[in-house]
Amino acid sequence: MKLAVLGAGAVGRSVVELAGQYGHDVIALADSSSGAVDEDGIDTESVLERKDQEGTVGDGTPEDVLAADYDVLVEATPTTLGDAQPGFGHVETALSRDRHVVLANKGPVAERYGELMALAEDSAGEVLFEATVGGAIPILSTIDDFGPDQITAARGVLNGTANFILSRMAADGLDYEHVLAEAQDLGVAEADPTFDVDGTDAALKFVIISNVLSQGEREYTLSDATVEGIQNIPGNALDLAAEDNRTIRLIGEATPEGVQVAPKLVPQNGVLAVTGTRNIIQFETENAGELNVSGRGAGGPETATAVLADVGRLPPL
Amino acid sequence: MKLAVLGAGAVGRSVVELAGQYGHDVIALADSSSGAVDEDGIDTESVLERKDQEGTVGDGTPEDVLAADYDVLVEATPTTLGDAQPGFGHVETALSRDRHVVLANKGPVAERYGELMALAEDSAGEVLFEATVGGAIPILSTIDDFGPDQITAARGVLNGTANFILSRMAADGLDYEHVLAEAQDLGVAEADPTFDVDGTDAALKFVIISNVLSQGEREYTLSDATVEGIQNIPGNALDLAAEDNRTIRLIGEATPEGVQVAPKLVPQNGVLAVTGTRNIIQFETENAGELNVSGRGAGGPETATAVLADVGRLPPL
Repeated sequence: MKLAVLGAGAVGRSVVELAGQYGHDVIALADSSSGAVDEDGIDTESVLERKDQEGTVGDGTPEDVLAADYDVLVEATPTTLGDAQPGFGHVETALSRDRHVVLANKGPVAERYGELMALAEDSAGEVLFEATVGGAIPILSTIDDFGPDQITAARGVLNGTANFILSRMAADGLDYEHVLAEAQDLGVAEADPTFDVDGTDAALKFVIISNVLSQGEREYTLSDATVEGIQNIPGNALDLAAEDNRTIRLIGEATPEGVQVAPKLVPQNGVLAVTGTRNIIQFETENAGELNVSGRGAGGPETATAVLADVGRLPPL
Repeated sequence: MKLAVLGAGAVGRSVVELAGQYGHDVIALADSSSGAVDEDGIDTESVLERKDQEGTVGDGTPEDVLAADYDVLVEATPTTLGDAQPGFGHVETALSRDRHVVLANKGPVAERYGELMALAEDSAGEVLFEATVGGAIPILSTIDDFGPDQITAARGVLNGTANFILSRMAADGLDYEHVLAEAQDLGVAEADPTFDVDGTDAALKFVIISNVLSQGEREYTLSDATVEGIQNIPGNALDLAAEDNRTIRLIGEATPEGVQVAPKLVPQNGVLAVTGTRNIIQFETENAGELNVSGRGAGGPETATAVLADVGRLPPL
């Protein structure tokens, strides 16, 4: 497949770097202000080097990239809420040109799911978005393989930053502010970690899971979710939990009752108590008990594997 | 899809009971000596009741079932080693008639993989076999989704009986013979548990995983596997392991070096130390670290969900 990649952050860059391993060609790459297009495949190394050194990926514009002759548009620009722009517009353009779209950007899937599905319906292109939930963990493809009708609920830990902070608070008896600063130093937490620690990021992911599980019967957006973050958990709450062989995790849930994200007590050695930046999803099934999938829920190469697995699922145009 | 089910044990029965939930019709069912065929769909309740009361499923023969007008043959007869008969012959018949085959029987996939793939190649029908490894856990579909090229090794616990025995030995300091007898009383272990405790069952599953991972580059059979069981583990080995925060699990591995099954020391609260009859598979990936999938690895309804997920993946004939 010929890929055009929008977004030159960690995920976009990794898609560009790994696409060849999967047998695909990157023919265009854009960051927020510049673009590089080469129908024979861009020179990935020099384009990424230019990004590092000059802050631009090429002499063209992002619009050139959107207009290029790709099979698949990879939308990896930052997630935005509400109207989910400019990501939604990029998706709209590609689908109206009958091209496939693979999203790493959560906005269009969490905030405008119904419109997104309607656009895909009218297009010869398809839309896939495994990379929007749980990085490398195959969550949406597992739902699809197992059968959404067979899954009665999903819960788990889908934010690595919040999980790292809670793990460190519990392991070393440190308080929230201290561990957050450490996580920022380590690059685990972003400079502005608001969406990670206030539960928004996890909520967006469970909204997306709910949309997939409900198969269009009901549409969910962030405004349907009940969300509580980890900012106000005192360090001694984790000590108290540990005395009872439990710990605290930021648990998200997608059930027929709706989407919830909140800190919860879980057994210290239970499956939901993943440590560090590891993520886990647990499906409750109709006929087969619980099914757990865990792994790396974030990171450039990890998320790029989900993007490229989606690309591999798309039919030829 | 119209299904014919060969085998009226726990898995075959559950496929018959659950097929309707997935939108499929069972038009034939056979046990080892009798058969029931109805092109409009067999009366599943009365057929299973007859099996319970009279020991036969109908007045027909298994050959009638094999000759019925199904879309998919579900092969759920007991696993046999070596020539994998009669299962292999059933598969051969269905494929030569250009019908699909879904296997729960490990024999043909573990012992005659190359021949099986060649038969499928020459047929309009396809062969799928998720149910041969790890019950409800989506192992083969995860390999397929993630990309076999991206997975460098697989390891884990894929025998619930052995895992139940080791879990109980560790939890209560009991010896092997005692716990085995208890497991047989509970129905967790079969009357003849040889293949479960000597590692053969787990080895067959890792042979199948190796065949899928190698994508035909190399064919594996049970004779390629190095296998050691749990029969000779003294109870105090588990006590000694526990003093060091470790425990013993029957770990299988599929790596480029080959297939191995043996009892191994693992961290007591690590991901591989699943308890009871729970199974886990851990994939090592090229670009995304470790990916773990755990759940119920055996049981009639659980394994039937894997069979029916496979049926859902098949194209119309």
